[in-house]
Amino acid sequence: METLNVDLGTRSYPIHVGPGLLARADALLPDTMGADVLVVSNATVAPLYLDRLLNAFGARRVVSHLLPDGEQHKTLDEVAGIVTTALEAGFSRDATFIALGGGVVGDMTGFAAAVFMRGVRCVQIPTTLLAQVDSSVGGKTGVNHRLGKNLIGAFHQPSCVLIDTDTLDSLPPREFAAGMAEVIKHGAIADLAYFEMLERQQEALVSRESDALGQAIAQSCRIKAAVVAEDERERGRRAILNFGHTFGHAIEACTGYTRWLHGEAVALGMLMAAEMSDLEPVSQARLRDLIVAMRLPTEPGSLATASMLKAMGHDKKVQAGSLTLILLSGLGEAYISRDFDDARLKSVLDAWST
Amino acid sequence: METLNVDLGTRSYPIHVGPGLLARADALLPDTMGADVLVVSNATVAPLYLDRLLNAFGARRVVSHLLPDGEQHKTLDEVAGIVTTALEAGFSRDATFIALGGGVVGDMTGFAAAVFMRGVRCVQIPTTLLAQVDSSVGGKTGVNHRLGKNLIGAFHQPSCVLIDTDTLDSLPPREFAAGMAEVIKHGAIADLAYFEMLERQQEALVSRESDALGQAIAQSCRIKAAVVAEDERERGRRAILNFGHTFGHAIEACTGYTRWLHGEAVALGMLMAAEMSDLEPVSQARLRDLIVAMRLPTEPGSLATASMLKAMGHDKKVQAGSLTLILLSGLGEAYISRDFDDARLKSVLDAWST
Repeated sequence: METLNVDLGTRSYPIHVGPGLLARADALLPDTMGADVLVVSNATVAPLYLDRLLNAFGARRVVSHLLPDGEQHKTLDEVAGIVTTALEAGFSRDATFIALGGGVVGDMTGFAAAVFMRGVRCVQIPTTLLAQVDSSVGGKTGVNHRLGKNLIGAFHQPSCVLIDTDTLDSLPPREFAAGMAEVIKHGAIADLAYFEMLERQQEALVSRESDALGQAIAQSCRIKAAVVAEDERERGRRAILNFGHTFGHAIEACTGYTRWLHGEAVALGMLMAAEMSDLEPVSQARLRDLIVAMRLPTEPGSLATASMLKAMGHDKKVQAGSLTLILLSGLGEAYISRDFDDARLKSVLDAWST
Repeated sequence: METLNVDLGTRSYPIHVGPGLLARADALLPDTMGADVLVVSNATVAPLYLDRLLNAFGARRVVSHLLPDGEQHKTLDEVAGIVTTALEAGFSRDATFIALGGGVVGDMTGFAAAVFMRGVRCVQIPTTLLAQVDSSVGGKTGVNHRLGKNLIGAFHQPSCVLIDTDTLDSLPPREFAAGMAEVIKHGAIADLAYFEMLERQQEALVSRESDALGQAIAQSCRIKAAVVAEDERERGRRAILNFGHTFGHAIEACTGYTRWLHGEAVALGMLMAAEMSDLEPVSQARLRDLIVAMRLPTEPGSLATASMLKAMGHDKKVQAGSLTLILLSGLGEAYISRDFDDARLKSVLDAWST
């Protein structure tokens, strides 16, 4: 097991990474935690891992709440349901909410913990690669609104993140690859040596070898934790974590959120962002090769430039200069750009729209 | 105009108190505020003051949202409605939400600001005495759940509080008196000199003389701000602000939340708490006299001891030692008591149950 620390002053917390951690959950939770625990999971994850987690708890009073599976259930009403379960159990401000599942379960449970009696402790136990390297670390929580994703939420740091790498064994190949997109992103924006390690280890990672995977997850968490520690509320530097995401979100929107998984769209978005960057052709090729090696797509299908610009909030209705892109000055080094060339953006999108 | 500061490090904010401030709102708002403003009010307050506030704004883009009036509408659904209005206006993380109204409007607007895009600025413009001296200062926001009051919420400090004492002219007498209960409380728990000032000024206050009222509101805010600055998230000392509230909430619950206004129940609760305290008879009499002078009730009507204990969470179903009372060691000095004498509590309640 490897343990890292997210350094946020009084809100600092540990991330434990390794195999077999679910069964040891009780001992790994912070000492200060009270006896009352609400475990939130969903209909897909619970049959696989809920019993293993519940069996780990001895003297605590544990109640569980199952959400329906899927992004369409990431609503304020479902969060209210979590709160109701906690209230009906008689839980108070000493309670701890535990999220067992992917990003949707983590975001909703974290938000429920943020607002239950004005805030209780939350522990994240992510069971997808995407959640392990991305959403479980950093304290962003929330739900969707019919007018857009994640528009209602809070910054609420967890008290602890527990990453049991064994839970990846059950992950479908496309979802595993989608998580790898964020892993590649961490190397690309912040750590050339890590990017090179991913290149060397690509076969071991694709075949989910435990050691290689544990190291990659830990290093990705370390990078994300460092960025979050520097800028908890995303007022500046934290935006570099959005590398590939502005293009990626637009791809998702233009394809009705059905064709690509989020991570797949991010992979495609990273390729577009790399083309917008002043990046050497050889570096662009290395990024593309690693994306291919991780079984991620490189062809988005037909995308109209006008629709992409609109989805990026960069059509005529939005004032100039409002769009921010995260670009690379080299592999391992990202920067925030607000003064990119509009004509170049259009020509990059045109090249992808055929 | 008087300006105080709530000292909370990077979350510090000013409170402006005085007559005629609504018309000067634009100039009094913090310089850092963006152009987009959402004013939230309700059907009772808006006809009185909304135009005056909107006229004060020049170059800003202002949208307003009216809530239905009443505690029964303090729900998550109504908060979602505020968020929807902001989204439909195209507002982003630069927006500012302004609460124009009493405590319910303030709590709901503050909570909407806490969760809109994970948190935007909020300005409180309280128009009732209770909200001016109590709920607008301190950052507690939230809504009710069918299982209890204020069970869903967040700590979200405002960027500024604007108290226009002219708005009290329209306040019904019972609501004015209810606000005075919290004013008396501030003197009783923390400031003997202030308590004595209230005794001397009682006629001027009851007749709502502007100078006396402005001074009292400012001093009450100063006391509340100092307590909040010491313990923002109510982990200790902040609990002294609950003087009279444990008994008061029980009185409200035992009378179905219809017979007494919150402040009236707090006045009755302060008398009960004073009897539980080791307070000289002369001090008890002074507290009672001031409550009478402010046109607040001293007779709760028939209250069964068993129902009161149950409403206080102190019947046999709840473990011993879980109830906390705020008591007085003297006028102007409160302490937190967890080891009071159960028999004495019962006999105090018995004396009030006839």
